[in-house]
This record gives sequence, C-alpha cells and structure tokens, in this order.
Amino acid sequence: MNLHPFDQALQLTSAEPHVFTGASARPYWNMVGPFGGMTAATALNAVLQHPALLGEPIALTVNYAGPVAAGPFKVSATPARTNRSTQHWVISLSQTNAEGADEVMLTGTAVTAARRSTWSHNDEAMPQVPGPAELPVGKSVRVLEWLNRYEMRFVQGNIPVEWHGGGETSLSQLWVRDNPPRPLDFCSLAALADVFFPRVYLRRAVLVPAGTVSMTVYFHANSEQLTQSGSGFLLAQARAQAFSDGFFDQTAQLWNESGALLATSHQIVYFKE
Amino acid sequence: MNLHPFDQALQLTSAEPHVFTGASARPYWNMVGPFGGMTAATALNAVLQHPALLGEPIALTVNYAGPVAAGPFKVSATPARTNRSTQHWVISLSQTNAEGADEVMLTGTAVTAARRSTWSHNDEAMPQVPGPAELPVGKSVRVLEWLNRYEMRFVQGNIPVEWHGGGETSLSQLWVRDNPPRPLDFCSLAALADVFFPRVYLRRAVLVPAGTVSMTVYFHANSEQLTQSGSGFLLAQARAQAFSDGFFDQTAQLWNESGALLATSHQIVYFKE
Repeated sequence: MNLHPFDQALQLTSAEPHVFTGASARPYWNMVGPFGGMTAATALNAVLQHPALLGEPIALTVNYAGPVAAGPFKVSATPARTNRSTQHWVISLSQTNAEGADEVMLTGTAVTAARRSTWSHNDEAMPQVPGPAELPVGKSVRVLEWLNRYEMRFVQGNIPVEWHGGGETSLSQLWVRDNPPRPLDFCSLAALADVFFPRVYLRRAVLVPAGTVSMTVYFHANSEQLTQSGSGFLLAQARAQAFSDGFFDQTAQLWNESGALLATSHQIVYFKE
Repeated sequence: MNLHPFDQALQLTSAEPHVFTGASARPYWNMVGPFGGMTAATALNAVLQHPALLGEPIALTVNYAGPVAAGPFKVSATPARTNRSTQHWVISLSQTNAEGADEVMLTGTAVTAARRSTWSHNDEAMPQVPGPAELPVGKSVRVLEWLNRYEMRFVQGNIPVEWHGGGETSLSQLWVRDNPPRPLDFCSLAALADVFFPRVYLRRAVLVPAGTVSMTVYFHANSEQLTQSGSGFLLAQARAQAFSDGFFDQTAQLWNESGALLATSHQIVYFKE
C-alpha cells in the first residue's frame, strides 16, 4: 500500500533524544522550498512522535528563519517543562550547509495538554456559504507543485487573474482538503492553516515577493473531532488586518463541514514592493 | 528622578552572553505572579537589550510554562539566525526553585527586522467609539495590584458586576494607557496586548480559574509611530473565537488615538469549570 504523499513527507526517524531526521518533499514544493504548511506540520510531528508527549496540541508557533533546501533536515523537539496537564515544547529545524555547518531554518514552540470536557462554544460561527459540492474546483496556476496536493473550491477571494493593482478586500473563503482525500489529523490541520496565498496579492491585485515569517495555530478540536471530520472539506477563511512597512498579518479560521471551528491561526508575512 | 514603575519592572542586568537577570515586580502583581503582559515585555526587553539586535520587533510569542515567583529570574535571548534584514530569536525565562534547580517559567520566540517603507494600510479600521475623555475611568476591582498600573476607560465589555451565568458576547473595547502615563514603546505595547481579563468571564458571566497559556503579538508600528503615539490612550479590542475543552482563544487589536493599528495579538487561555 502506498503512503499518502502527506504521510510520506511527514516521515521522521528518531536519531537521538529529542532529535528526528527527515527530508524535504518534492510533492509539497513551493517556489524555493517546501510549502510552509508542510514544514509546520513536520515541526508539530516531531512533538507528536516524542516519547514523552503529554496530551494533544493546543498551540503551535513556527518562525521561518531560512529557506529549507531539498534534502535531509534535523528537527528537534524538547519538552522544556511538563506540568500536570500541560507541556511546553521548544522546536527547531536545521540543515547542514555546503560548509558542513548547521543552519537553523525554523524556530518554534508548542503547547500540548490533556484536555478536559468543559462548556464549549464557537463564538465565531461558520459563515453561510454554498457547500463544496455547489462550487467548482478552483483552477489555480498549478506551477507550484504543492497546490496539486490540495483540492480547493473557492467561495470568494481566489487569486487574481489580472494584476491590475485595484484590489479591494483581503478576504478569502474556500473549501479545502488534501488531494487525494486523507483523514484529518493535527499535522494536516496545521498545514491547512497555511494554505492561503499571500493576502497582499488579493488586497492590491499585485504580484510581489512575499513569504510567511511567523505562524501560530491554536487547536480547538480534540482528536475525536478530527476523526469525525474524516476526509471531508474544511471551510478556510483568511483576511489581513494591517499592511505596514514590509509586513502584513493574516487572521484565519478553519471549520469542518459540520460548522465546528477546529482551529484559528495567525501569521505575519514579509512583502516587498 | 524616579523611574516609572514599568521601567523599574523591566530592568535587566547583563549576566553572561545571551543571559540577563531581573526580578519580578510587586507593582505588577497579579493573582499568583506578575501580570503576564509584564513578563512578555520582559522577554521582549531581553531581545531589545541584546548587543547583536537587528532592527525592530515584528513578532513575539511567549508561552507561560509556570507561575513566576516573587524574586530573581534569568531571561535568555539568543539570536538563532540572522539574515540580511530579519533576525530570529529564541527566548526563555527561568527561576531557581527551592531545590536549587532551574525551572523554565516561559518559552518564547521573536522576530526582529529592519523595516522598509512600503504600501501600508489598516484593513481593520478602528471602530467608531466615543473618545477617552468622554468615558469614565473604569472602576475595576483593584485587588489585583497590576490593575492600578493602567488607566482603563471602557467603551463596552467591562468585567461583569454580577456573576449570573448569562453573558452574551466576548467583545471588550477600552481605552487604556500606563498609569501614570508613559511614552509608548515596544515593551509597553507588548504588555498592553495582554491587558484584557479572561474572555470567559464576560462571555458567560462566570468567575472561573483561567490563565493565558500562549500569546503572540504582531507589531505593525515602527518606533517612529510609537513615538508619535506618545503617552496617549490606545483603543484595545478583544474577543474570543472559540471555547473548547478547557481552552479559549482571544483575538485583539490595539489602535492609537489617531486610528493607526499598532499591534494585533492573539492568545490561548486555559479555563476551568
């Protein structure tokens, strides 16, 4: 049986305490390195593979320090502190450069926790939008290989077809799932939080260099809710709040088809013009 | 001349490369430790005091791993990677426990950058609200010492006076500044991002144990805009997006009196009931 490309890309080998090795995956290639969501998923996977893991992910922050190159990498995940019901992780991903020195490509932190059932409520309700079956499969420019790993059906805010410099909104809403479909888990949810093209493309209808600098994902779903989501679509929504001196932010929400808010996410993105 | 209490609390002494020492400050005391915003500001200050600093803060993430005790602490800020225009920092704050061992109280990361002027725009405009002079000074329960360090004038969503279990919204809007007033800088802006009481208090009108687990601040302002903000009020807005199995999130915005969105922030908070 062939592994799903996401599971292939995610594979880690335990190398020494707190350290795993893996390799960047061509099927998830972006412009100059792997899709950032895949790298975020890899960072989280190191935490989830760690023998000392307590509970399930609550928060993940990854900072993209340098472009991950094709080839092997090391990812370390160290439990800096373990409490009764929460655990704090320090993460880094590095590669050996041409001179044989380790270069840090990602820094990060995560919090995992043993969740307990409490009053629960979506304050941010899923917007009323047409279902995925009612919408065409998005025809993105598929020159970026990782885009072929996702099925996207846009409600609004697809990437501009004309770069006329006259955008008006930074809001995108799309139904999205792995392609081929794959049962949702924490790693794929982390990757999906980074599935949006840069907001500046949409807001201004200009194509400029842009890249995520830091992303945070908060997991509201427990593993049971992820199982219930299966390989269905998620409604993914993103918009910017501020563009300022070379950086803009993005706030994002991911609901499953039943309307449960599984994750919220934020990122800050470098842009040039 | 007496230092402002915020500057006193912020004081760090360089101890060894990448390591500073400080002490938790009673004037910013919360229930069982210092106000989390003060601790976040301290973490950022270690980065800003570092001799290798490049540029200004873009992103800060702090994870509250354990309750900071009264007394001395060590904070380390290490540049994990320095690029041409961005720099990636790994931060931790620790204290020596009764057994003489180091305990990690905070993990974190930051990104600093040499900003360049680009197209800039607030996509999230400041809401139309009465100005600070038109609103009464909030009468919070001042049993928590740190609350006396801020002047708060609520537009809406002040802490409930009756815990009747019937809240309807998680939205708060308030004008806030240091008390006594102090010119805004990156550290005080980071602290102000944590100025909101737990959203669950408001949303449900119940008083339950709650504490921030992780907070991220994105800085949209450069130092010039902070200088322009002076010691004026900021309009601080926060609301939750999801409450789920012991944790809720909070998304927040901070505008200055001129309507510039200086920072956006997010946190995930533990709660019990």
